[in-house]
Amino acid sequence: MTRALAPTRAMPRGARARQPAFGGSTRARVVARANARRAIALGADVAVDETQLNAFLDSLKYDDKGLVCAIAQDVDTGAILMQGFASRDAVAYTLRNRKATFWSRSRSELWCKGETSGNFIGVESVHVDCDRDSLIYLGVPTGPTCHTGAHTCYYKRVDGRDGAAAKVDGGRHAAEEALTTLYELEATIEARRVEAVADDVKPSWTRRLLDNPELLCKKIREEAGELCQTWEENEGKEAATNEMADVLYHSMVMLNKQGVPMSDVLAVLRRRFGTSGVDEKAARPPKKLIDPSK
Amino acid sequence: MTRALAPTRAMPRGARARQPAFGGSTRARVVARANARRAIALGADVAVDETQLNAFLDSLKYDDKGLVCAIAQDVDTGAILMQGFASRDAVAYTLRNRKATFWSRSRSELWCKGETSGNFIGVESVHVDCDRDSLIYLGVPTGPTCHTGAHTCYYKRVDGRDGAAAKVDGGRHAAEEALTTLYELEATIEARRVEAVADDVKPSWTRRLLDNPELLCKKIREEAGELCQTWEENEGKEAATNEMADVLYHSMVMLNKQGVPMSDVLAVLRRRFGTSGVDEKAARPPKKLIDPSK
Repeated sequence: MTRALAPTRAMPRGARARQPAFGGSTRARVVARANARRAIALGADVAVDETQLNAFLDSLKYDDKGLVCAIAQDVDTGAILMQGFASRDAVAYTLRNRKATFWSRSRSELWCKGETSGNFIGVESVHVDCDRDSLIYLGVPTGPTCHTGAHTCYYKRVDGRDGAAAKVDGGRHAAEEALTTLYELEATIEARRVEAVADDVKPSWTRRLLDNPELLCKKIREEAGELCQTWEENEGKEAATNEMADVLYHSMVMLNKQGVPMSDVLAVLRRRFGTSGVDEKAARPPKKLIDPSK
Repeated sequence: MTRALAPTRAMPRGARARQPAFGGSTRARVVARANARRAIALGADVAVDETQLNAFLDSLKYDDKGLVCAIAQDVDTGAILMQGFASRDAVAYTLRNRKATFWSRSRSELWCKGETSGNFIGVESVHVDCDRDSLIYLGVPTGPTCHTGAHTCYYKRVDGRDGAAAKVDGGRHAAEEALTTLYELEATIEARRVEAVADDVKPSWTRRLLDNPELLCKKIREEAGELCQTWEENEGKEAATNEMADVLYHSMVMLNKQGVPMSDVLAVLRRRFGTSGVDEKAARPPKKLIDPSK
């Protein structure tokens, strides 16, 4: 149980020190603040078994340049933040220091993402694919990942407005970023909040809820009751699925109303379920917690 | 608005026709059934502007082998399903046919994933990174993605039990798969459901809720009320975040109680928010729906 490389105890300064450059949008600021709150311990005191580590590094299938593919993914939101390539040393550095590290092909050097910008990606766990030539670095960014200031490097949709292939109808509307369903919904709610509604146009249901918090509270209590009712009245899986969707949607409107990003909620659940080690456990707020081990 | 390649109208037969080979676990079966329900239209009637498509294909930065990186991600769960490389033709085929398509480096041929196994990945949208050398194919698999029968190719954790670098304490416990927080929580609840509890040991809170649905319903109603109260009593963001975490956790225990995977709930929300085009809209169940456009 030794550490070949001393941990760099850099604090997650990126998100606090920098203003996101990505258009200075509300979303970018919300994401930056949330990342600062969600940050995991970097360079934490992780015991690395060097024999196991070397056996693992030997087992990877490096390409003709000595690299494997490495994808950094946000553990709470599932967002793919960036993709690069990693040399044997880069993988070792990542596992030892819990910071996403790559091989820079343009500069031909080891590149611990964030070492110049301060925007690290703290690594919670590492996963390897069946071919052993591709890794996921699952973690939390301390600031915007992209050099443009965007939360993720994949902020451009190909088959959208400015893209190559437009869909006839439908299509994801809220953002060009590769948002998964929950965050597309969050972005849609935010779009409804900020959109201008003319006096003679009936506002969206979301907007009506946002403008009428008493109605929103009534709906949240009602939908929670209806979810319970699917069990109590034995209404079946489809009903339970639909009622849960109602609970989630209305609760997320309430989160928007209060300016709380969903990623903060997931970070709370991650900490409660002990997925982030001792450091985060010690940092838990005293407020009532679900402890599934009890 | 022409189609150079005729759409292959293959139905998502993978998930139905095949038994998942991945240990035949409950989780694998649940995932397979959910994928069948969530499937998006493949080879749907998508209008592709050939001029825009070619301009986009020209703009990509292919490596010395003429390839870009392509990552297939589940639009509902955020799970990274697989990573491969795509040639110009593979990207074009993906955009025209809405099926994740790669260049097989081992066979030196275009590879529409699923064309032999039946386990396609339906593509909802495609996103490009800032360097224009990496793509996300965001969509829904029709069956297990991995040739081993696993839901995703990244089913092995490096720094876990069998991995290279173990953490001193903590660490994600439910699965070796690269699960993001929501699905880690779902897997944890399932683990609590199936675990053996000795007579003289106090069961986990999750298990007590599962064994006592009346208590579970009482808690869900209570937590929904407490979330509303954070607004009504102006308790602040931290309280709202914690109460939402409570609502989400307890509701997810209810989903487990009724055998409903979270991905089904997200698929319902995706369909409601019009992110999947005309085909899915037409297939909507008549039951009450949130229509954010109203």
